[in-house]
Order: sequence, then C-alpha cells, then structure tokens
Amino acid sequence: MRREPRALLFDVQGTATDFHSTVCGEARRISDGRCPGVDWANFVDRWRAAYYTALTAAGTGREHWISVHSVYRKALDRLLEDERITVFSEAEREELALAWQRLVPWPDTVEGLTRLKKRYTLATLSNADVSAVVNLSKRAGLPWDAIFTAEMAGAFKPDPAAYRMAATYLGLAPEEIMMVACHKYDLRAAASLGLRTAFVARPLEFGPGGDVDVAYEPEFDLNAADFLDLADQLGS
Amino acid sequence: MRREPRALLFDVQGTATDFHSTVCGEARRISDGRCPGVDWANFVDRWRAAYYTALTAAGTGREHWISVHSVYRKALDRLLEDERITVFSEAEREELALAWQRLVPWPDTVEGLTRLKKRYTLATLSNADVSAVVNLSKRAGLPWDAIFTAEMAGAFKPDPAAYRMAATYLGLAPEEIMMVACHKYDLRAAASLGLRTAFVARPLEFGPGGDVDVAYEPEFDLNAADFLDLADQLGS
Repeated sequence: MRREPRALLFDVQGTATDFHSTVCGEARRISDGRCPGVDWANFVDRWRAAYYTALTAAGTGREHWISVHSVYRKALDRLLEDERITVFSEAEREELALAWQRLVPWPDTVEGLTRLKKRYTLATLSNADVSAVVNLSKRAGLPWDAIFTAEMAGAFKPDPAAYRMAATYLGLAPEEIMMVACHKYDLRAAASLGLRTAFVARPLEFGPGGDVDVAYEPEFDLNAADFLDLADQLGS
Repeated sequence: MRREPRALLFDVQGTATDFHSTVCGEARRISDGRCPGVDWANFVDRWRAAYYTALTAAGTGREHWISVHSVYRKALDRLLEDERITVFSEAEREELALAWQRLVPWPDTVEGLTRLKKRYTLATLSNADVSAVVNLSKRAGLPWDAIFTAEMAGAFKPDPAAYRMAATYLGLAPEEIMMVACHKYDLRAAASLGLRTAFVARPLEFGPGGDVDVAYEPEFDLNAADFLDLADQLGS
C-alpha cells in the first residue's frame, strides 16, 4: 500500500454494529410473547430491505430531506399491516422504530476502534440520521473523532456527494482517507473517487444462515476479518 | 430551571480553548527570536479581531463557503505586511495560521467535559472549520459526542441557521439544548431561538489584562466560573 491513510471513515449499520440481532431482540422484547407465530428474523430482513429500497429511490438535496427514522417508521407500519400484526400500540411502534438508534456494536468494534484511534482520525460515514448515529455511538461508547452522515450531504451513499462531504469536512485529499465497510457497493463508490478501501467481513450481518457476501477481493486495499484484524493490518 | 437539558452545545474558541496563549506561543516559537520588537499579544488580538470582522461580513450558503483557515491566512498576510514583518517563509506563515487548529484547552476543560459527558450529549457549535475542530479536539482529547460547526449550516453564529442545524442534527427541541459560551452575543442568539444558556467566564480569553466581559447576567439560565463549576451546577 502507498503512504498510509490519515483518516478512516466507517460505515455504521452492519459494519460497526449488529443491527440484525439488536432489532430482532427489540421486536421480541416489545412484542413480549404476543405474536408467537411471527418469524422476527425474516421480519427484520424485510424491514431492512424496505429501508434500502426507499433510500435508493430517495432524491438528493438538503431542503426536503426525509429523516431515515421516518423511512423506518413508514416501512414498519406497512410491514405490520401486510403481516396483519395488530398488537402494537402507537408508542410501541415508535419504540420499535427507534431500535435502529440503539444498535449494539460487534464484539470487536470498541476495542478495534480504540486501538485505531491512537493512530488515525476516525469518523463515521453512515446513511442513518445524525441523531441516530450520535445516540447509538454514545450508548455503545464508540470513540469516533467525528460523526458524518448522509444527512449532512443531502445525499445517501453511494452518491459521490456523501464521500466528498466527508473529505471536505476532514480537510483531506481522497487518497488520505480509507473507507471501511462490509458492503462492497459502498467501497466501490469510495474507490471511484480516489479513497482507499478496507473490506470487513460481517458473516452474521443478516443473522445466522443469512445470505452475505464475505469474499475477500483484491480490488480493495485491505480485507479484514473484523476491526481487530483491521487494526493489526494498519499497524495500530 | 425547568426540566434539565439533554444536550450541551459548546463554543470552542475562547470557551473551551485558550486561543490567546496558544497562538502567541506558536508565534514566538516560529519567529524564534527573529522579531524582537513585535508585541505578539497585541498582534494576536488584532488577528482575532480581523477574523471576527471577516466572519461578520461573510455571506451565508454552503455553495461558496470560504474556509475559516483561509480567512485566518489572509488576515495574517495583511497584518504581517502592515507590521513590515518579513522574516516568515511561506511554509512558516502556513504553520502559524494552522496554530488555530492546535488550540489548547483551558485547564478545567477536559475534566469538566468528562464529567458532563456521563449525563449529557456534548457537541460543539463552533464557527471554525470542521477540520479545525476535529484536529484540535483529537489533539487535546476533548470528548465530544459530535462536532458541529458553522460550515455544516453554511452560516456563522449568531445566524439562527447555525443553531437550528445543531438542533436538527441532535434530533432535539430547542429547550432540550443548552448553549455554553463565554460570549454573550452567542448565548443571546441561542436564547432567542428557545435554547437554554450557560455563560462561562473566561477572564484570560485575551490574555492577562485583556478587556473581557465576565459579568454574570440573570438573563442566562446558568453563570459559571469554569467547566467544573458548570458540571457542579448541572449535577454531573
């Protein structure tokens, strides 16, 4: 690898945090045995897929920005209707949608970030709302130097505007920044703008037996098994 | 005071950090005895005043945003010319202008923030560039949960857009946020939008004998001697 990067940009949902087990757990806790027939793992997969579809279809621009929380909330209401799940009160639906702001980190995340922070500036580049990333990071103790999200760019990843916003705010050239993600489309978009890339495999992103692409690829500057492996490979 | 705030927003330059002694010290270090007749304290006061004038005159809008670093750099070049100080190379001028990204915290800052962080979300609301606040915070170990600056709003404080940006990104109502600053114009702008206010006296903001308004005012929700006193008064 060429001269080492000065800052690392992290995807949050999936890469730094385990949304699948967090949101499944919250659905089970809040439903509290009232929906014995529901497959929550499948429900969460469909919820996440609906979010992804909505973001892909979303326009850009800060003026009429729609919060990701409202995207989750609308998708939840539709899924509950489709499944004819009627046990949740309005307050419970809101609490369940806010589970995406309580995502727990993977077991290696905090230790890996703490090691990497000694040597690099660490920032998020997430499609979630700023408030969601602030809240879940504070709760989990994720030691970011800065939080950047799509909301600040008025454009969701993989729109180039999101990566450019982070580079501008860091005051760094693209080649001084490394994007870290478990999603290859995210890394490919970053690479096309001149950022370096680190793929981190997250085989449990969609739960046990989930359909996840964890194959290492020579196109990325680094491929790592988790954040500890990433810290090892980056000498920190 | 009504229900306690959930987040505290901090001014950085002057309130959390001691720009006067930092920048004077850097000017002395870089000039290295080559300008024996220069009064660096006075020089820094005029430099800061030129910055303040430039920001007050600046327009708003993200599209043609001018970095605060370039404002400092231009003001420095003009001051050096006015003073007929010719000893600095181009690299030294740049290094001196970057002193504003190496500001050191007041002695009470890190301990006060560390205590406050246990109970509140802590974020900056600075007029400095994002990169400047990221760099000086990392260097000084300032434990922010999030960094917000005027650059993200396309408007400098006391423009309402700056405070509104922070409230939106925190996902909080104005009354759930407390602005902390040693500058009364900053607090008054925040109060006019419904934020709570904490005045922190910084008698040494412009160095020993500097002309600073440190009078407590009943118009603010809190008046504090430093960040430790602020933590005491906020029960953390």
